[in-house]
Amino acid sequence: MIRVVLIGSGNVAQHLVSAFAKSDTVTIIQIFSRNKRSASHLLDSSKITDSLNNLSEADLYIISVTDNAIEEVSKQLSFKNKLVVHTSGSASIDILSNENRKGVFYPLQTFSKNKKVNFKEIPICLEAQNESDYQLLETVSRAISNKTYRINSNQRKALHVSAVFVNNFVNHLYTIGNDICVQNNIPFEILHPLILETADKITLLSPNEAQTGPAKRNDTQTINTHLNFLSDENQKEIYKILTKSIIDNGKKL
Amino acid sequence: MIRVVLIGSGNVAQHLVSAFAKSDTVTIIQIFSRNKRSASHLLDSSKITDSLNNLSEADLYIISVTDNAIEEVSKQLSFKNKLVVHTSGSASIDILSNENRKGVFYPLQTFSKNKKVNFKEIPICLEAQNESDYQLLETVSRAISNKTYRINSNQRKALHVSAVFVNNFVNHLYTIGNDICVQNNIPFEILHPLILETADKITLLSPNEAQTGPAKRNDTQTINTHLNFLSDENQKEIYKILTKSIIDNGKKL
Repeated sequence: MIRVVLIGSGNVAQHLVSAFAKSDTVTIIQIFSRNKRSASHLLDSSKITDSLNNLSEADLYIISVTDNAIEEVSKQLSFKNKLVVHTSGSASIDILSNENRKGVFYPLQTFSKNKKVNFKEIPICLEAQNESDYQLLETVSRAISNKTYRINSNQRKALHVSAVFVNNFVNHLYTIGNDICVQNNIPFEILHPLILETADKITLLSPNEAQTGPAKRNDTQTINTHLNFLSDENQKEIYKILTKSIIDNGKKL
Repeated sequence: MIRVVLIGSGNVAQHLVSAFAKSDTVTIIQIFSRNKRSASHLLDSSKITDSLNNLSEADLYIISVTDNAIEEVSKQLSFKNKLVVHTSGSASIDILSNENRKGVFYPLQTFSKNKKVNFKEIPICLEAQNESDYQLLETVSRAISNKTYRINSNQRKALHVSAVFVNNFVNHLYTIGNDICVQNNIPFEILHPLILETADKITLLSPNEAQTGPAKRNDTQTINTHLNFLSDENQKEIYKILTKSIIDNGKKL
């Protein structure tokens, strides 16, 4: 049984606890949480500590705290030469303290407190400094997910930027779509099937092949109708820049 | 049995033919196609015509051609006072000829030739000039879909602009995400689960509630790291404008 200590009790940490709970090869033997109560629903209270000096002996220490706190937490660990990883998409492996062996265990998904996710389908991006540590991370990863990828810190940075485009920015376009609907007394749910199909499509076609719409067709009449329709300057500007980008992209192909 | 003549043989027309084929209340008795051969896989050849003067007597004529051709096709119809609808999201009901009763039958979905869709889940937006015509359109719509909405031409214009944001522009952000992955030797499939979850999330949460990421947190350090990472000026500009829009949106709430 691989013994894991989890440092942190936020969103990602909580999803990891539920995922590992179903595993018979990996066990979370302890959670560190600054506020012991906030972790009380996750693990038996005897396994929760609020002191970094009290951490149990384990095969792997997973730091799952906000990006800004990773470096400081890793410095405060009182032991040496253990395998310590963080779960961040944007932080380099280098910010971890040199006192321990370093690694990254990054589940690439958007986690909400009130929405369950199927961890088996979540890609986990792994990085380590030597092969035996990598093998351990891979074993731990496979205990909860079917999708394990070897991704170095530079690639992870690219992946994180990419994720901002396909997740954060996409969701903001949903927000704009929703705003336009609300302003015109249209239930936004009418767009749900389109949104789901748009996402589903690119699991079969490349995004370039899947591109449709007035910009793709360079249909300036429709584009101008839409620009005249939009009264919000910000929406208008976003419409223009994305339309231009689609048209320019078409010229490159 | 409600008898329908379908004018056009493009993407939407083809999906309509397969959808109505399963109905026992609505039947497509004829298809007009400029090129008879291009419709030969859709319907028995005796039911295909390439002449608008040859259209059969029907309860409903559905014009499903490119937006620019709708007006011209509707003018060329040789009969009067029949119910004639188009299937366009962006064209007003007014572009149809006054010689016939007018309506709109707009299935709001993105149709690709090589990807099947479940028509039952596709919202169909209906408009007519009188209640009995509307009732007929509703009956026809319910023969193929569980989701029927009464949407006037102004609302449909808003819906179409909104669809450009949540479909065309979203797909372009997938393209950018894909480009960044390719440039960094990362398989784009790593992002598929995130993309699907992002889409699925807003069927449960409002897009505003679902928003996450560095812009939402106003995390200028991560934002600057990402901007430094991006070398493509176009990607950089899109990153900036969408980040600013998310930040401004947060201030409004």
